[in-house]
Amino acid sequence: MALEKNTNIVMEKSNQALNYEIKKIDGVKLATTCAGLKKKKRDDLLLIFFPKNSTVSAVFTKNKLAAAPVLIAKKNLLSKKKSCAIIVNSSIANAGTGKKGLEDVIFYTSYLAKKINCDAEQILPFSTGVIMEYLPIKKMVSGINCLVKELSYTSWDNASKAIMTTDTKNKVVKKRVIIDGIELKIIGIAKGSGMIAPNMATMLSFVFTNALISKKLQNIIINDSVNKSFNNISVDGDTSTNDSYVLISTPSDKSLQIKNKDDKNFHIFRQLVIDISKKLARKIVDDGEGATKLLKLIISGVENKKHCKIIASKICNSLLVKTALNASDPNIGRIYSALGSSELSFIKKDNFILKVNDLVIWDKGKIGSSYSEKKGQYEFKKKNIVIKISFINKDSSADTYEFYSCDLSKEYVEINSNYRT
Amino acid sequence: MALEKNTNIVMEKSNQALNYEIKKIDGVKLATTCAGLKKKKRDDLLLIFFPKNSTVSAVFTKNKLAAAPVLIAKKNLLSKKKSCAIIVNSSIANAGTGKKGLEDVIFYTSYLAKKINCDAEQILPFSTGVIMEYLPIKKMVSGINCLVKELSYTSWDNASKAIMTTDTKNKVVKKRVIIDGIELKIIGIAKGSGMIAPNMATMLSFVFTNALISKKLQNIIINDSVNKSFNNISVDGDTSTNDSYVLISTPSDKSLQIKNKDDKNFHIFRQLVIDISKKLARKIVDDGEGATKLLKLIISGVENKKHCKIIASKICNSLLVKTALNASDPNIGRIYSALGSSELSFIKKDNFILKVNDLVIWDKGKIGSSYSEKKGQYEFKKKNIVIKISFINKDSSADTYEFYSCDLSKEYVEINSNYRT
Repeated sequence: MALEKNTNIVMEKSNQALNYEIKKIDGVKLATTCAGLKKKKRDDLLLIFFPKNSTVSAVFTKNKLAAAPVLIAKKNLLSKKKSCAIIVNSSIANAGTGKKGLEDVIFYTSYLAKKINCDAEQILPFSTGVIMEYLPIKKMVSGINCLVKELSYTSWDNASKAIMTTDTKNKVVKKRVIIDGIELKIIGIAKGSGMIAPNMATMLSFVFTNALISKKLQNIIINDSVNKSFNNISVDGDTSTNDSYVLISTPSDKSLQIKNKDDKNFHIFRQLVIDISKKLARKIVDDGEGATKLLKLIISGVENKKHCKIIASKICNSLLVKTALNASDPNIGRIYSALGSSELSFIKKDNFILKVNDLVIWDKGKIGSSYSEKKGQYEFKKKNIVIKISFINKDSSADTYEFYSCDLSKEYVEINSNYRT
Repeated sequence: MALEKNTNIVMEKSNQALNYEIKKIDGVKLATTCAGLKKKKRDDLLLIFFPKNSTVSAVFTKNKLAAAPVLIAKKNLLSKKKSCAIIVNSSIANAGTGKKGLEDVIFYTSYLAKKINCDAEQILPFSTGVIMEYLPIKKMVSGINCLVKELSYTSWDNASKAIMTTDTKNKVVKKRVIIDGIELKIIGIAKGSGMIAPNMATMLSFVFTNALISKKLQNIIINDSVNKSFNNISVDGDTSTNDSYVLISTPSDKSLQIKNKDDKNFHIFRQLVIDISKKLARKIVDDGEGATKLLKLIISGVENKKHCKIIASKICNSLLVKTALNASDPNIGRIYSALGSSELSFIKKDNFILKVNDLVIWDKGKIGSSYSEKKGQYEFKKKNIVIKISFINKDSSADTYEFYSCDLSKEYVEINSNYRT
């Protein structure tokens, strides 16, 4: 993933969570349609309209060949005019399309702007799908005509379905908390189901809240929340040309106001955004292409998070580890070898404990005394596998880091061999 | 791979090559046997004996959790006593076996030493196979008893077969040249067939020559030759716990003498070792597990080789690129996206040309003008795919770098899911 990030703030729990269905954020309108960009006939275009007093924050891919819509969205966010709409198409990424790709985005955002009475700079465009194909602009135009007609309070479920590509499940998370009698609502949708690492298909996520917050404060929160969610499911900085995460707060008269960083409400809101982002990220991992197992890697006793990421990258990206997981084969040596291949000088056979779930595989210089092939098989058969590597480190400040990945199946190869055909 | 490397010397062509079958290097004796380490009944133990006046050079894995035999071989090479034998077992890597693994190696090398009248320090042990399993030491002992009985001029073909694990083909390369009437012979064997990157199964290679050369000069050559061969088939420094490359020159009265670095013979010998190593490395790529296609990546116009390695790592390790190759699907955007995901600041959409074979896919800011889906399909159907990325760079000193990889097939997943079972 590797979306941009800046801040790191201590967490707090929100004070009250109520689990009933939230249908909408006041003022935010949705529409979806089938513009025919996909071969399969299903919705492939999403328009989200929000009032101009909304606070909009976004983080984008670090890919050096970012898609045309990413470049335009970034530019429009810097414009003095306040954003008021998001348009997302699936099926075609409009990346690797050069000057024509940019012209196409300017054309359809201008067209949409006229239809909804704003300037093109107020529209944030996003795309996901095949790279190096041009958008069929006529289909986009007739799609937009449909969208503006149908712009109303359609469901977030439909919205999340319209942005899917190889996803097998749509991804929506909603939550609300009541703080001092004021309702704080949050609704997030996401798409993405690629193998988490090393190659993730485009991740898009759009999160809406009804908070009253400044852009400066919200920017702190978006960076922090991406860092703690989407950037932890990818472990080697891989990024698609189109990855984007947008956080929009649309306040009403009754909104919770977040005044400054010391405000109790700031911490509650921040935690809520992090929670929602983590849940969306987790849904992406769970929907890994062809994945049958979920891998959680916990590394402790390492002072430098960069070193943890190097280790995580080696283990989570190891095709040998991934295929062993897929086969439920306790080929534990592959984990051991992947760890050593990180070439970090502090790794010595005597200074770490390696566990799979609660089974000790390696115990400071020798194979775990209670380890047996049978016990290994028992653990590897589970759907959720936790690999825990604990380095013996006297420095109690050394933190614990978590990463997520999945197995590699024949279905993954199948899905990705046939994606365009 | 990432074996150690130090030097970089300009190449020259050898003056005369004769392609007839070389059967042996005088004084070098081989034996293979089935010690029963493998479930399948075939040779799994190899002994190579060579005279004590031989010059022995070796490079080893940089994996921080290197196998017991690697640690002992390294130590024995530093001993004052001259090496005179190599023993290699397949099936079990003796890595992740801690103190017991080391004790096992000392036990069986000592046992072998008594049998062939030398010290244990004169024996270089190597292993390849499953990690985190102990060697069945009784089987090793009875295997050694067989080996020493049969130690004679058996074939290099048999030797190369005894060290195979998931290899589908054994790997032997031989060559001889006549220089000023003196015959220079070289015979190399190798094993290794893992997906080249990101996770290569153990690579072992043993190369023998009849040259008369000092250890100091031969060390220059081994480093240079690994750098130009095995280290170029792996692109992200991944290393197994057991990777090793050994170069042994056993001189006779009639040997070509290599006196110093300015010697004509030095350059001929050096080129011969590089050629043999490249051929062995290429055989490993060709034998990629489940591979149906060979990918050659050529990057030009980049001044820093490290940057080329980062780009190569992204493209050669991209599961999306690998599955597209496997499906013969010209999903060219995946190559474009993988390039951008390297996050190198000099990459801009307008400053490079991307070709698949001779077909221009991307031409400084736009899709190649003569590109069509049909033409893409034609190129992607080929067994050998060359991806060429040429950066527009006015600095004529910028070098061209080549990397090798292969596709990802369902068979790869199948092979690696079932490796131990």
